[in-house]
Amino acid sequence: MSDDQTAVRFGILGCANISIKLCKALSKAPNAKLHAIGSRSLEKATAFAAEHGLPEAVRVYGSYEGVLEDEEVDAVYIPLPTGLHVTWAVRAAERRKHVLLEKPVAMNVAELDRILEACEAHGVQFMDGTMWVHHPRTAKMKEALSDAQRFGQLKWIHSCLTYNPGPEFLKNSIRVKPDLDGLGALGDTGWYCIRAILWAVNYELPKSVLAFPGAILNEEGVIISCGSSMHWEDGRSATFHCSFLSYVTFDVTVLGTKGCLRLNDFALPFEESLGFGKFLEASELDYGKIEQGMWCPKPNEHVVETGFSQDILMVKEFADLVRKVQGCEMKPEKTWPVLSRKTQVVLDAVKESIEKGYQPVEL
Amino acid sequence: MSDDQTAVRFGILGCANISIKLCKALSKAPNAKLHAIGSRSLEKATAFAAEHGLPEAVRVYGSYEGVLEDEEVDAVYIPLPTGLHVTWAVRAAERRKHVLLEKPVAMNVAELDRILEACEAHGVQFMDGTMWVHHPRTAKMKEALSDAQRFGQLKWIHSCLTYNPGPEFLKNSIRVKPDLDGLGALGDTGWYCIRAILWAVNYELPKSVLAFPGAILNEEGVIISCGSSMHWEDGRSATFHCSFLSYVTFDVTVLGTKGCLRLNDFALPFEESLGFGKFLEASELDYGKIEQGMWCPKPNEHVVETGFSQDILMVKEFADLVRKVQGCEMKPEKTWPVLSRKTQVVLDAVKESIEKGYQPVEL
Repeated sequence: MSDDQTAVRFGILGCANISIKLCKALSKAPNAKLHAIGSRSLEKATAFAAEHGLPEAVRVYGSYEGVLEDEEVDAVYIPLPTGLHVTWAVRAAERRKHVLLEKPVAMNVAELDRILEACEAHGVQFMDGTMWVHHPRTAKMKEALSDAQRFGQLKWIHSCLTYNPGPEFLKNSIRVKPDLDGLGALGDTGWYCIRAILWAVNYELPKSVLAFPGAILNEEGVIISCGSSMHWEDGRSATFHCSFLSYVTFDVTVLGTKGCLRLNDFALPFEESLGFGKFLEASELDYGKIEQGMWCPKPNEHVVETGFSQDILMVKEFADLVRKVQGCEMKPEKTWPVLSRKTQVVLDAVKESIEKGYQPVEL
Repeated sequence: MSDDQTAVRFGILGCANISIKLCKALSKAPNAKLHAIGSRSLEKATAFAAEHGLPEAVRVYGSYEGVLEDEEVDAVYIPLPTGLHVTWAVRAAERRKHVLLEKPVAMNVAELDRILEACEAHGVQFMDGTMWVHHPRTAKMKEALSDAQRFGQLKWIHSCLTYNPGPEFLKNSIRVKPDLDGLGALGDTGWYCIRAILWAVNYELPKSVLAFPGAILNEEGVIISCGSSMHWEDGRSATFHCSFLSYVTFDVTVLGTKGCLRLNDFALPFEESLGFGKFLEASELDYGKIEQGMWCPKPNEHVVETGFSQDILMVKEFADLVRKVQGCEMKPEKTWPVLSRKTQVVLDAVKESIEKGYQPVEL
């Protein structure tokens, strides 16, 4: 947390687990600080503040409205269940609060558009809470993919993000309730896969999306496990798999004509708390350096150091934009809402393909 | 090569590149030896024998028939283009030669059935040329997948096998000619992926197969790049991608409820010539051992040593069976033809799904 008077003052709507992470990030970001937290009950918000040692200066509200009505709050972080996003993000924008919105950003692109229109109408910055794109490793990987000599042309991407939270979660978690996080595993884990795929193709939307048959839905119709293929007109393809039923994976493989990039911790580097992240990259250019006994070179391990962890970097980037918008140096940056919207468009297409009995959906 | 009089005497039909590998394997296998090689011209066969330093005792024939008519040949290895397999494998069986048939074994399962019927009618052993299943690493990986405590229930498999042989190959290679290796990349590389997936599920056929839209075919209709999803009734799923257009990959990921198994060199271990192979395995059981700063444990690297490389192990296994059949100790082992047939059934389904405009194919 910065004591600097220029620090962006954040309000947090809700005491979700992810709020703990954001409180910590706000305590470390050089240009932001936690100003207020609100929950549906004052008791819950007070207990959260005490349990997580929030500074006494942090204001505690017994409603989300309380945070939005606080005129000293510059920006809000909204980690509420997805089904509540449209209501609270729009209200926040209407109160001229800049909006950092947890993913998945909305139940569908129509809801997201209402949020983005409100942000635009009220001149506030929008960004979603996808953290890994802010890690310096991500920029280094993009450099590797952009190296035509080593990587060649991109042909295929595969991503997999799964975890197995167990039977209690599958029965009771808000993440599997239709009126709360109604996108289930597709929203919670598939969001990352789709974002990784779009990131790899420089956010060019696929021409068509086809969900894999055999998606698993719970009794209330919420997706527990699914996957999809995507196709671009020039022959590039991608696939992903996301699930609440398998051991934890965070995989991305990007294949080019001449090289390959791979990592198994894309959404959160294994060594995040040690201040670095790694990825593997291989190229046919290394064939001249084959070690004795290897049929092809072992991939190169790239290590990327980072001064801040990716949650802090996200807060810092967002707060920088907020300050510039507040100082009339710029209008809200359009890139971030565009990336969120493209991710949601593909996510909606996957859901539609499942609902249509695994028919292809054209974009 | 064994000089032992009990060594199984092999004939090779054709001087393909893969024949060089088999000649070497036969020279090292303790229970087999190269007895004869035949090509469409004596000149070519003689040149091959000279170039690769085959022993003088090896008989050289100017026709495939020559090898089959040689009464001292016990078994034949057939690396001919796929379109010729049914003709020559059936003829070989009719001459009571045991048949080691390169993959893909046939253009379709109907052709394969003619081959298998001929082998059964004439009492000869059949095996396909998929080498990696004979590596001791494969057995160790199966042990890992069978460990219900560490791995849990299998949920999902992904495999990718690609290489980029370049434009000259894509124009002229027999591997992209409809009348020769008419299955293209699906036969040459997808075969391995399908086999890996079936291996992981103990060769239980999927209920349905759906090729990904966007398969790439050449002007003559031969598959250059494609992929597919597969589905089992109990909710297990698998996907694969195979291609002649991307950097070399040999990936398999097998996901269970509690663990994960991964390798990037499944069809040929990176360290094959050093006498070992590795694979990565992770389990939630290791969460108690998380290293400081890691969000989850790094996967365990398992190293499996092997006395023989996988090509020699394949020859050895096949030759063992041949000797037992010849000695009337057993009838030809049915397992190997069954595995080949299941692989071909799924391969045919992927091709059918592509031909039907990416409709699901029920098995």
